Amino acid sequence: MGLVVQKFGGTSVANVEKIRNVATRAIREKNAGHDVIVVLSAMAGETNRLIDLAHSAAESPDEREYDSLISTGEQVTITLLSIVLNSMGYRARSFLGFQVKILTDTAYKKARISMIDTLAIEQELKKGSIVVVAGFQGVDEENNITTLGRGGSDTSAVALAAALHAERCDIYTDVDGVYTTDPNVCAKARRLDKISYDEMLEMAMTGAKVLQPRSVEMAKKYDVPVYVKSSFTDAGGTLVTKEDKEMEREILSGITYDRDQAKITVVHIPDKPGIAASLFTPLSERNISVDMIIQNASSQGFTDLTFTVSKKDMKEAQKCVEATAKDIGAQKVEVDDDVAKVSIIGVGMVSHSGVAAKMFKTMADEGINIMMISTSEIKISCVIQRKYTELAITVLHLFLHRPD
Amino acid sequence: MGLVVQKFGGTSVANVEKIRNVATRAIREKNAGHDVIVVLSAMAGETNRLIDLAHSAAESPDEREYDSLISTGEQVTITLLSIVLNSMGYRARSFLGFQVKILTDTAYKKARISMIDTLAIEQELKKGSIVVVAGFQGVDEENNITTLGRGGSDTSAVALAAALHAERCDIYTDVDGVYTTDPNVCAKARRLDKISYDEMLEMAMTGAKVLQPRSVEMAKKYDVPVYVKSSFTDAGGTLVTKEDKEMEREILSGITYDRDQAKITVVHIPDKPGIAASLFTPLSERNISVDMIIQNASSQGFTDLTFTVSKKDMKEAQKCVEATAKDIGAQKVEVDDDVAKVSIIGVGMVSHSGVAAKMFKTMADEGINIMMISTSEIKISCVIQRKYTELAITVLHLFLHRPD
Repeated sequence: MGLVVQKFGGTSVANVEKIRNVATRAIREKNAGHDVIVVLSAMAGETNRLIDLAHSAAESPDEREYDSLISTGEQVTITLLSIVLNSMGYRARSFLGFQVKILTDTAYKKARISMIDTLAIEQELKKGSIVVVAGFQGVDEENNITTLGRGGSDTSAVALAAALHAERCDIYTDVDGVYTTDPNVCAKARRLDKISYDEMLEMAMTGAKVLQPRSVEMAKKYDVPVYVKSSFTDAGGTLVTKEDKEMEREILSGITYDRDQAKITVVHIPDKPGIAASLFTPLSERNISVDMIIQNASSQGFTDLTFTVSKKDMKEAQKCVEATAKDIGAQKVEVDDDVAKVSIIGVGMVSHSGVAAKMFKTMADEGINIMMISTSEIKISCVIQRKYTELAITVLHLFLHRPD
Repeated sequence: MGLVVQKFGGTSVANVEKIRNVATRAIREKNAGHDVIVVLSAMAGETNRLIDLAHSAAESPDEREYDSLISTGEQVTITLLSIVLNSMGYRARSFLGFQVKILTDTAYKKARISMIDTLAIEQELKKGSIVVVAGFQGVDEENNITTLGRGGSDTSAVALAAALHAERCDIYTDVDGVYTTDPNVCAKARRLDKISYDEMLEMAMTGAKVLQPRSVEMAKKYDVPVYVKSSFTDAGGTLVTKEDKEMEREILSGITYDRDQAKITVVHIPDKPGIAASLFTPLSERNISVDMIIQNASSQGFTDLTFTVSKKDMKEAQKCVEATAKDIGAQKVEVDDDVAKVSIIGVGMVSHSGVAAKMFKTMADEGINIMMISTSEIKISCVIQRKYTELAITVLHLFLHRPD
């Protein structure tokens, strides 16, 4: 039997009692004959507490120090789990990023794993240990502690599974799998038994919070089967894996939404080459991510340009764009944060024509105005008025079951 | 100007506001032209919180995991201080034990520093950084995190001062120096301007909590001048340094007490070789430290043996000794935890005869019965009934000022 990597999120390790549950799950795999690596997040709320502490010390905390500070949460949970396991008679050993070592670049707060040294872990597995690894953290070439961004423990788990050629990577969370859409919004949402890497990636990118997008990219790259499971029940679970015939028969896999969106429109810009560059370069210099971008066809030498940013970045983006707008001779800048993005995702789209048209008609029938559209091979996203979010999801979910 | 090492204890870094005070003190030395290394403890109460957490996970937590868990407290304070310093325009960089690296043996919970790699710190100092180092922690040869025992940050600070040839090591604490005795017990206690390493060591060993004994040993070994100072006022301070003529003129420097003592007597033991070994070997195997030991002269082939242990170890020590007592044919085992140890310390004792006699007479005059006596060249300790502790200190403190 091979190696299984198990990852547990913050709600699964929120206190010592819950950590005992995690121990039970690790022991079950061990007793079934597997080698076991457990990857943990910090206790629920702890990372936020540390972030608040950093911001009470300085408005813009030094990033190196910030990462070292917020990485302590995982050190607490992995040592507690190892203490519990050892006291239950199972040899266990915790590993921090530097002890593994999990090498990353030096992009603090959003570092990327570049290499995992598997030697120390392999030695411990050979001794029969359950190996418990801190998620979310690594070290750069100079032994500075780095963190992998929100949800980074998912990526730690998948990266370890890839590096150590695990049989599978189980992501335990507080829901029992990946759903067609958010069950809190649409009562008809149902759990998917299986989803392709690409679909999962689009879902994660467009608002589903169940997995960090980067972890899905990595799972796809190294072909790691990922199971999303509940840490509280044994039922359910969703397998994220390679596309297969079965998936292609279904047109759509899921519907996601993202209410953390703001729309910015630059009106009546003299249409000359280099406009987009002059607008977006200052934004990227300020680390503001732009999501959707739409430029209308030029009419009489003028054009409008609309794009979306994260709500938290709206004010700064507006200020920045207003300065550029003046320089390039645009008429004005309009902002709107009363919007949401709704997306439909499915590998079946590729071979089924007319999915987009059906989506637009379904929304039009309900009187929902579409402000922006963006598409990929397996995804269509629409920006709509925020108040229509639930309605759009509900009617599109019907459409999901009745594609023709 | 040379290097100054500053160490701040838990009450000095109890919250972000107090950490700002620490920043101010570090900046003052920096602005005066010194290179500065700051060594920090965890926030007051944090290490205890982590210890409780470990014990809620298991009765006897795995020691490797325990050390890794309780070392997180210092990671929080050093990164917060570095964040504050950077935000104030001073380049600062935190170092954990593994980042320095501070190499120790693998005796978890009470590790000893074996080597400090000074390269990374020296490079940062050259760049003009204030270097902030986690006290209390190190790593062993295999990168396991170790801790140095209660008060271990004192030792971290002195060890860094020694390794980097610092001009001095300032230990900031919540009292403004070393006192002749505990001011809470004796109103006449006065601050010492200077004390020798040996006296400080005896005071630390016999109950004064101001410095970890091991830090004093190390300061003596490498001749590091140590200043004990208040982190809240600029007044006062005590220099711990080499003996000098001035010190020798004073007979006594201080009076200490320790109420954390329990006395165990094994009565009527057949006096044969190997008795002591058979009694104390099982205790040391259980990691129980024995302090004073007295064996009465044998009378008609039988002897009594009395020793003291820490109160927390009394029950286990009793059980262990009762088993041995039976084996070696002793009559019975008596325990008494209603005792205290009072000690007088001074390098002047060596050249002044009769100090012990005067101490005993002073106590006898007050009707204080002495149960056990132990002496070193510069110290006399007496075990007395616990209720006489304050009285003994008060009358002995008079004697300190009126030695003849």
